[in-house]
Amino acid sequence: MNRQNKTVIDPWGSTHVADYSKLFDEFGIEPFDEQIIKRIPNPSKYMRRGIIFGHRDFQRILEAIENKQPFAVMSGLKPSNRFHIGNLLTASEIIYFQKEFGAKAFYCIADIESYADNRITYEDATDTAVDNLADMLALGLDPKNAHIWRQSEEKRVMDYAFIFGANVTTATMNAVYGEQTNFGLYMSALVQSGDIMLPQHPDFGGPKPVVVPVGLDQDPHIRLVRDLARKLSSTYGFVLPSATFHRLMRGLDGSEKMSKRNPMSYFDLSEDLDSIRSKVMNAFTGGRATIAEQKKLGGEPDKCMIQELCVFHFVDDDEKIVEAYQNCKSGALLCGEHKQEVIEVIISWVKNHRRKKEKHIDTAREILNV
Amino acid sequence: MNRQNKTVIDPWGSTHVADYSKLFDEFGIEPFDEQIIKRIPNPSKYMRRGIIFGHRDFQRILEAIENKQPFAVMSGLKPSNRFHIGNLLTASEIIYFQKEFGAKAFYCIADIESYADNRITYEDATDTAVDNLADMLALGLDPKNAHIWRQSEEKRVMDYAFIFGANVTTATMNAVYGEQTNFGLYMSALVQSGDIMLPQHPDFGGPKPVVVPVGLDQDPHIRLVRDLARKLSSTYGFVLPSATFHRLMRGLDGSEKMSKRNPMSYFDLSEDLDSIRSKVMNAFTGGRATIAEQKKLGGEPDKCMIQELCVFHFVDDDEKIVEAYQNCKSGALLCGEHKQEVIEVIISWVKNHRRKKEKHIDTAREILNV
Repeated sequence: MNRQNKTVIDPWGSTHVADYSKLFDEFGIEPFDEQIIKRIPNPSKYMRRGIIFGHRDFQRILEAIENKQPFAVMSGLKPSNRFHIGNLLTASEIIYFQKEFGAKAFYCIADIESYADNRITYEDATDTAVDNLADMLALGLDPKNAHIWRQSEEKRVMDYAFIFGANVTTATMNAVYGEQTNFGLYMSALVQSGDIMLPQHPDFGGPKPVVVPVGLDQDPHIRLVRDLARKLSSTYGFVLPSATFHRLMRGLDGSEKMSKRNPMSYFDLSEDLDSIRSKVMNAFTGGRATIAEQKKLGGEPDKCMIQELCVFHFVDDDEKIVEAYQNCKSGALLCGEHKQEVIEVIISWVKNHRRKKEKHIDTAREILNV
Repeated sequence: MNRQNKTVIDPWGSTHVADYSKLFDEFGIEPFDEQIIKRIPNPSKYMRRGIIFGHRDFQRILEAIENKQPFAVMSGLKPSNRFHIGNLLTASEIIYFQKEFGAKAFYCIADIESYADNRITYEDATDTAVDNLADMLALGLDPKNAHIWRQSEEKRVMDYAFIFGANVTTATMNAVYGEQTNFGLYMSALVQSGDIMLPQHPDFGGPKPVVVPVGLDQDPHIRLVRDLARKLSSTYGFVLPSATFHRLMRGLDGSEKMSKRNPMSYFDLSEDLDSIRSKVMNAFTGGRATIAEQKKLGGEPDKCMIQELCVFHFVDDDEKIVEAYQNCKSGALLCGEHKQEVIEVIISWVKNHRRKKEKHIDTAREILNV
């Protein structure tokens, strides 16, 4: 599946990224297309399903894979919330690159950012950081081939932030991040650039390809860090970091995106199971006004969040998704039935995840030294 | 001597600070007056001579002295140049507070700033940092009662910079520092605030009075760090740092201030002795057009940089300075003679300093761990 060659059937919902051609033409993001996917030995479901739709410099990563050269995968999370379904995608991509290709995973707990942005002190962030990291470990992150850090504890990242700050104009910071009242947000952005360059620090073997899986909303960060890497490559030998871009899951309730202010739009992995059940049961679907109408016209799976939950996270088998999509479209699969089925899949996934997570809390504490 | 009570005779040159009343009224700087000086057991020559003319919250320091409570003195230097006569004043004040009252000295080598401002890499800054520190030790800084750091190596200072950045608005940064093209200069300013608060870090015994001897041009930094300390006092218990303000020495050649771009305006302590001789010999004086005229009208010592050199650095005995001042004014002391005399004093001072400094280079390296 790719968007250049889009068929009537789009079980993956990739119609939900507004305007690809603009992204590709104006911003210089390149399509993550079949040419690329077929060079990847075992593409992730996000790749296969077009959720990852664009990239910058992914060629470097392909070459590293093909030539069996070391590369890294980098991402991070603000320790401001418990892990929720919106965080699963990046998490899974990190683990995918680590597991499939032996990429060293660099995982950052962005506590400088959560302080600047959300007023969470480093101390208060610690429990959330441990909890989030335990989620990552339960999802399959291998700490033996990873560097995991809190920004506030990683002097090398701070170092980079100051060096980068001295190599960027105030005008660029304004252009990339807009006019921020809170000066700390600009500084956090430079810390984030530091995080992204950390895999290339001499202590980690120096310059190398690094892939950063991000949502499209993070592209300003990617552009900034690539500009900085370019500017400082003669001094530090930096390789421009690569990025993959994925579309974001919409809100469960049909809202444009998941948001903490709208609890019906998402669930977190630690949430009460009945609450999860209820949120999925109330999720927005592509159902018609009446059952009779739906049987006649078929459903609209492109709009359906149950379908989206399966595509993004809870169904690994592509064929099953295509099948449900077609059965919905034909009117054979009604919303209530589909919901019941998917709720059971989700609840069992969550229970299983929690069982695994419990065993990783101590390891997470050890890694973070708290 | 103080400016409220200024007599016709002003051998200390304190007429050279433009408009005290404006400083005191508009900026809230308080006069460093006789009330204060007489509470200090053994005031420094800069205090006695009115070179230190203002302060913020020096009362805290007086109280600490009187109650024999611990306080700290903090200052620093960019490792961008060799030590020159313009650096001597702050240096001497640090050493004064350390020696007279047992204040712990906090001495910062501002290499993040010299990178942001002067493009000097941390590596390139190292030799200058060692050299400057050896000067400080030769001048009498006791490393046993001091904390000496490079910004780039002091994580606690970086920590503060990020915390402070999150507690300041972009508008404040613009108001205090103007519109800077180089974003790193704003960040350096926050690092400098971190330097000033370091003496109050829990690792150094927590909140305490700290005096920062600065030139008037540094008052924006002082105001910013005091605002931050006020804002964060409920979280960190910070005591607002105190400052003393000194006037700056003018350029030897009569220019308004010493400047690297104008080598005749200053000399550094490592400079060739003949060059120092020549600069002092060519210094601007208050001499008249002819010897006959000078004998008749007397010189103008208030304008004279030879007088200024003595007042600021090279003559410890106040009476000798008053005597030279009066002899100049009466026409008894001519410029050539005074210059010869002062040149010998300076050259002998410099030679002596260098002998001492040589012995401190290794210690300086040890302290900086390079």
